[in-house]
Amino acid sequence: MASSSSLHLSQALLARATSLHSFNSSSDRISLSGVSLPSFSGLKSHSSNSSSTKPASVSRRRGVGSGSVIRAAAVETLDKTTEASLVEKSINTIRFLAIDAVEKANSGHPGLPMGCAPMGHILYDEVMRYNPKNPYWFNRDRFVLSAGHGCMLQYALLHLAGYDSVKEEDLKEFRQWGSRTPGHPENFETPGVEVTTGPLGQGIANAVGLALAEKHLAARFNKPDNEIVDHYTYVILGDGCQMEGISNEACSLAGHWGLGKLIAFYDDNHISIDGDTEIAFTESVDKRFEGLGWHVIWVKNGNTGYDDIRAAIKEAKAVKDKPTLIKVTTTIGYGSPNKANSYSVHGSALGGKEVDATRKNLGWPFEPFHVPEDVKSHWSRHTADGAALEAEWNAKFAEYEKKYKEEAAELKSIITGELPAGWEKALPTYTPESPADATRNLSQQNLNALVKVLPGLLGGSADLASSNMTLLKMFGDFQKNTPEERNVRFGVREHGMGAIANGIALHSPGLIPYCATFFVFTDYMRAAIRISALSEAGVIYVMTHDSIGLGEDGPTHQPIEHLASFRAMPNILMLRPADGNETSGSYKVAVLNRKRPSILALSRQKLPQLAGTSIEGVEKGGYIISDNSSGNKPDVILIGTGSELEIAAKAADDLRGEGKAVRVVSLVSWELFEEQSDVYKESVLPASVSARVSIEAGSTFGWEKIIGSRGKAIGIDRFGASAPAGKIYKEFGLTKEAVIAAAKELL
Amino acid sequence: MASSSSLHLSQALLARATSLHSFNSSSDRISLSGVSLPSFSGLKSHSSNSSSTKPASVSRRRGVGSGSVIRAAAVETLDKTTEASLVEKSINTIRFLAIDAVEKANSGHPGLPMGCAPMGHILYDEVMRYNPKNPYWFNRDRFVLSAGHGCMLQYALLHLAGYDSVKEEDLKEFRQWGSRTPGHPENFETPGVEVTTGPLGQGIANAVGLALAEKHLAARFNKPDNEIVDHYTYVILGDGCQMEGISNEACSLAGHWGLGKLIAFYDDNHISIDGDTEIAFTESVDKRFEGLGWHVIWVKNGNTGYDDIRAAIKEAKAVKDKPTLIKVTTTIGYGSPNKANSYSVHGSALGGKEVDATRKNLGWPFEPFHVPEDVKSHWSRHTADGAALEAEWNAKFAEYEKKYKEEAAELKSIITGELPAGWEKALPTYTPESPADATRNLSQQNLNALVKVLPGLLGGSADLASSNMTLLKMFGDFQKNTPEERNVRFGVREHGMGAIANGIALHSPGLIPYCATFFVFTDYMRAAIRISALSEAGVIYVMTHDSIGLGEDGPTHQPIEHLASFRAMPNILMLRPADGNETSGSYKVAVLNRKRPSILALSRQKLPQLAGTSIEGVEKGGYIISDNSSGNKPDVILIGTGSELEIAAKAADDLRGEGKAVRVVSLVSWELFEEQSDVYKESVLPASVSARVSIEAGSTFGWEKIIGSRGKAIGIDRFGASAPAGKIYKEFGLTKEAVIAAAKELL
Repeated sequence: MASSSSLHLSQALLARATSLHSFNSSSDRISLSGVSLPSFSGLKSHSSNSSSTKPASVSRRRGVGSGSVIRAAAVETLDKTTEASLVEKSINTIRFLAIDAVEKANSGHPGLPMGCAPMGHILYDEVMRYNPKNPYWFNRDRFVLSAGHGCMLQYALLHLAGYDSVKEEDLKEFRQWGSRTPGHPENFETPGVEVTTGPLGQGIANAVGLALAEKHLAARFNKPDNEIVDHYTYVILGDGCQMEGISNEACSLAGHWGLGKLIAFYDDNHISIDGDTEIAFTESVDKRFEGLGWHVIWVKNGNTGYDDIRAAIKEAKAVKDKPTLIKVTTTIGYGSPNKANSYSVHGSALGGKEVDATRKNLGWPFEPFHVPEDVKSHWSRHTADGAALEAEWNAKFAEYEKKYKEEAAELKSIITGELPAGWEKALPTYTPESPADATRNLSQQNLNALVKVLPGLLGGSADLASSNMTLLKMFGDFQKNTPEERNVRFGVREHGMGAIANGIALHSPGLIPYCATFFVFTDYMRAAIRISALSEAGVIYVMTHDSIGLGEDGPTHQPIEHLASFRAMPNILMLRPADGNETSGSYKVAVLNRKRPSILALSRQKLPQLAGTSIEGVEKGGYIISDNSSGNKPDVILIGTGSELEIAAKAADDLRGEGKAVRVVSLVSWELFEEQSDVYKESVLPASVSARVSIEAGSTFGWEKIIGSRGKAIGIDRFGASAPAGKIYKEFGLTKEAVIAAAKELL
Repeated sequence: MASSSSLHLSQALLARATSLHSFNSSSDRISLSGVSLPSFSGLKSHSSNSSSTKPASVSRRRGVGSGSVIRAAAVETLDKTTEASLVEKSINTIRFLAIDAVEKANSGHPGLPMGCAPMGHILYDEVMRYNPKNPYWFNRDRFVLSAGHGCMLQYALLHLAGYDSVKEEDLKEFRQWGSRTPGHPENFETPGVEVTTGPLGQGIANAVGLALAEKHLAARFNKPDNEIVDHYTYVILGDGCQMEGISNEACSLAGHWGLGKLIAFYDDNHISIDGDTEIAFTESVDKRFEGLGWHVIWVKNGNTGYDDIRAAIKEAKAVKDKPTLIKVTTTIGYGSPNKANSYSVHGSALGGKEVDATRKNLGWPFEPFHVPEDVKSHWSRHTADGAALEAEWNAKFAEYEKKYKEEAAELKSIITGELPAGWEKALPTYTPESPADATRNLSQQNLNALVKVLPGLLGGSADLASSNMTLLKMFGDFQKNTPEERNVRFGVREHGMGAIANGIALHSPGLIPYCATFFVFTDYMRAAIRISALSEAGVIYVMTHDSIGLGEDGPTHQPIEHLASFRAMPNILMLRPADGNETSGSYKVAVLNRKRPSILALSRQKLPQLAGTSIEGVEKGGYIISDNSSGNKPDVILIGTGSELEIAAKAADDLRGEGKAVRVVSLVSWELFEEQSDVYKESVLPASVSARVSIEAGSTFGWEKIIGSRGKAIGIDRFGASAPAGKIYKEFGLTKEAVIAAAKELL
């Protein structure tokens, strides 16, 4: 990314599915949808622009107290200027696009879009700042539909707002093979969708991550004369999200961090799949959120109280030191005469008869998928407005770049995801003479080396920083009043941590979040890890205490099945380094894989630096660390990972002493090895050699793939035990002697 | 369990690790530790007993307002009668047992026991009703240490109270191989420990399950003249538990259900592993719990305010319609002059020097592990008291049995875990002519058939009852005012649901909880499922929508790696039935495995009733459903599970039409198949036949074990997609044609 144009900068982020809108940043004037905009340099830092007659409105769109004096040329707001009837019509357009798409697919969730159409309209038409032709414009407001099943709300809004990802034909292909309108919002399918939601509670936690990223970047990069980072994060969550523990975890942190630019709409419709929430959900959400340190507002009539919604947003923006929960009481399936306010409208098509009745009830004479001309025309301004917003920001960035060269370069790297040249030289390397150490400590050496060269690296642990060894020594804690720092303290909230990390990763391509806990507690956050993998969020999971080697804490803390369980998961790298070089290699791989998360399984116990390990080896997933055979025909191949590679190496020494030709293979990442060429794989594990022994302190499940039907897998197929680590290894038969015995059986 | 003695009834539950105390229920008087107790029949329903001079104290121990007029003979309480100095000494004994054990192990967590010793002492010495010589006495008060790392607190208390599971030598073997005092509390190792804790937040959710069980059984079985079920559930949880989302989920339900006999002590010590909780946990817990519908009490001086703790418990018992949170502000590591109130005392031994300083500071002149004689003597009464409590209850049960024969038989079945004779006859069976149906619907037929014969079956779904098909039609909802019902509405709280189910399962051997969500959302509750497996809680997990077959909801909802991930987990049964008979077989296995949880993966989509499937087949895990080969030498073996067994069967038909000898194997449970004899396994999958094709709509990870190096696994090693199910099956190549093609390659 050599271009110095800040416009290119954000355009570069347009992903595969969006058709690029043609910009020409070198011309003095840009023509966009027939709207003439001043060029960047022509934008002056005062208020003499076309919307100067509505300063209050402008200020709502721009965010209260942004501190900036630059104003967008083409920004305009709706409230008082737009006829109430048109607002109503726009809201009903949203409702019927949802109804019609669900009806055509005969599958989906019409209830939420019908109830949330008013807040959706106000957000996308009146409040949010975005550029529909560049969904990846850096400084856009973020919107997350945490209640992801209601995705037709978001698709309808993206469609009206002019996003190229959701055309009329896309709406008609809702929930069909290959469409850009899948059954739940997926960021990797639909530009304009920020994160992947559907599994409840994830979205609100992602939103906390997005808001954290904004607060952090703003604190790091904003200058008194140039607030280059400045956007809001909006989220809609429902009763289901509220019940999930993950939302309480994330919202507790949001309150603790004082994420004032996080504004959450709680769609309080009293209906969940099983019926009235009275049957399982009678807590006072308001009180809970007050306890969590949020500002809470209740909009009692979310169905038609548009001004109340507007006022609530204004109030929320005015509260700068707390996130805001706007509880909006709505009617699920609003407008459906016979199904509104019942679970039957939650997750099924209304049915032709009820669609007709709803059309009649809401006075909607149009064909399915029809957007009335006046509604279309009204929304069309967002294309020009959005371009202007981005242009304004690009001008601002150009100013910033001139004045703050170094910071601009860092910020650019975060915005584009381009890694600084030569960053990988920071990775520490080791020799067999380097002191033995736990891979969790070697991981800390890597993190502290990398943070010096990776401006987007930040993260932390779920209250185990001193056990996971994740503290960045150069930095302090990211806290409410020190948001520029990079050590994030998640508390004992693994699930929230994972989802927040997803939000950070998906905020900007160059943000590289890591998060940490004991490997066994990936069980607490597995749903978030899976969404990292699915949504291509390159989170680095630093998972220490990776086996029975943790010792006395016992079976509740000792992972057994976890390596296998992640090896079975798509699009994730499960890495189990054996020593320093392999830990560095794992970090290299993890940093490079920005669209595939990595899990590093790291030891609590000291491990020697082995001969033959290398960063390059790790990049291949599996490789030979030592071999005394010739002609690719060892008598036996010993295969290990992580802390057991040492045992394999020692067994090989003994067997070689007895004259055997023994190869030792480190299989640090099965996924990476699988991706190598057949020639390479054959060079490591030749098909003709069936005498193979594997050793790994975990379930043997899956090892048949590597060792074949004749091979022997030494592992643990029971739960662990509480005792000193050495004792457990011995009692469980994870020993050099066992490897030698197994090898001899095969020779 | 033919004996009619109710004493035998509870004694029968004594598990492997406890030495049985010898009772003689047929004698008129029982001699226990030199205390003479009246015989059962001699217990009269009035208050003329040895403790009648302290009615207030008796009432505290018995629970306020139990409604019963029977009083225990040998019950006595401490408060006003025991010298304050002895209480202090007892509390310090607890502290030093913890300090000494951690010191000797050079591993463990002394901080919590030192801070919580006062509440621990008051609970076990003054408040709780238990029989140390029979840790499984049905009507005991339950205690859960949710902050499980502080287990030395519980071990010290069990030791002082006279439990045979924790002798002095056990304390000295803390955290050593084979000891009964592992690094975290494990119910399967240490009688007196109710559930397995350590992973934070699980314990408080287990406690909600225990309290639910009590409320349910009390409502079902108590009579105006005989409250045969009547106990409290106490729990200690720390800051870590409070931060975990699972605790919010479970506590929201506890408030909703009005579990008045659940009393939780929140050890508010402001320290977690990373330091002061200020860095990550600044919410108002009080306010949150008020929002959750709990009664909240704050004991400001938990270190020495013994009377405040006592008063709080009294107040908590008086509040009958809400659970109570007693926030007890303590000093972690209380007594340690240099380490108290710091994270350094949380998870490491104090070190010799600091132990000495603490001894000096608390005036403790004794050797390590010493229990002063007066403390020992004081606590010794619990053996007699406990026996008396149980004897009293046994007498009560005898009365109950006489008067309420039917209910007594049901309750006895729940207490002992003995399944009613012939229960399995209720399992529905099917023929190939039976209508095609989704296995989730067939599951519902099973649940509704079984609930008629299994008095302990109860459960529900995480807000998906109508999708998971888990409603018991004979019953209403378990709710605050209808706790006798058996449909539990968990709301969208998968993790809490799993842990609550664990608590229910471990309350009484005959309680058979089931719980349900979409299979993919096992990710949300995996930590709880793992504890089911580890702690031998026979929960039945009803997991529907088990593959891409769910269709339009898309990849966020489509499990891929989940079957493999559970096949790798120890002590759990992963069952994937293909049709009605296999669903019935899966339920038979699940009900019989009371110490091993079962996961049933069930289809959303309709499946035909296949020829050759059977309950007996399922019990073997893998079996032949059709075969046209002879001499155990088929040309090819097609192996399927669940919804893909139909595809395998159809492919076999075609191949047979072409003259091939084809065997079709259903591998419904890998674990059960693995447990069969080698002879049986060879009869199903003969070693000589390497032409094997598997088909399963999930990750192929692990299938090499079954199909060998030559075999072909048809599955899905990527994330799913949003589209109608049939389309996805076709696009992903999960078709009869693919099976036939793969088979032909191998022939």
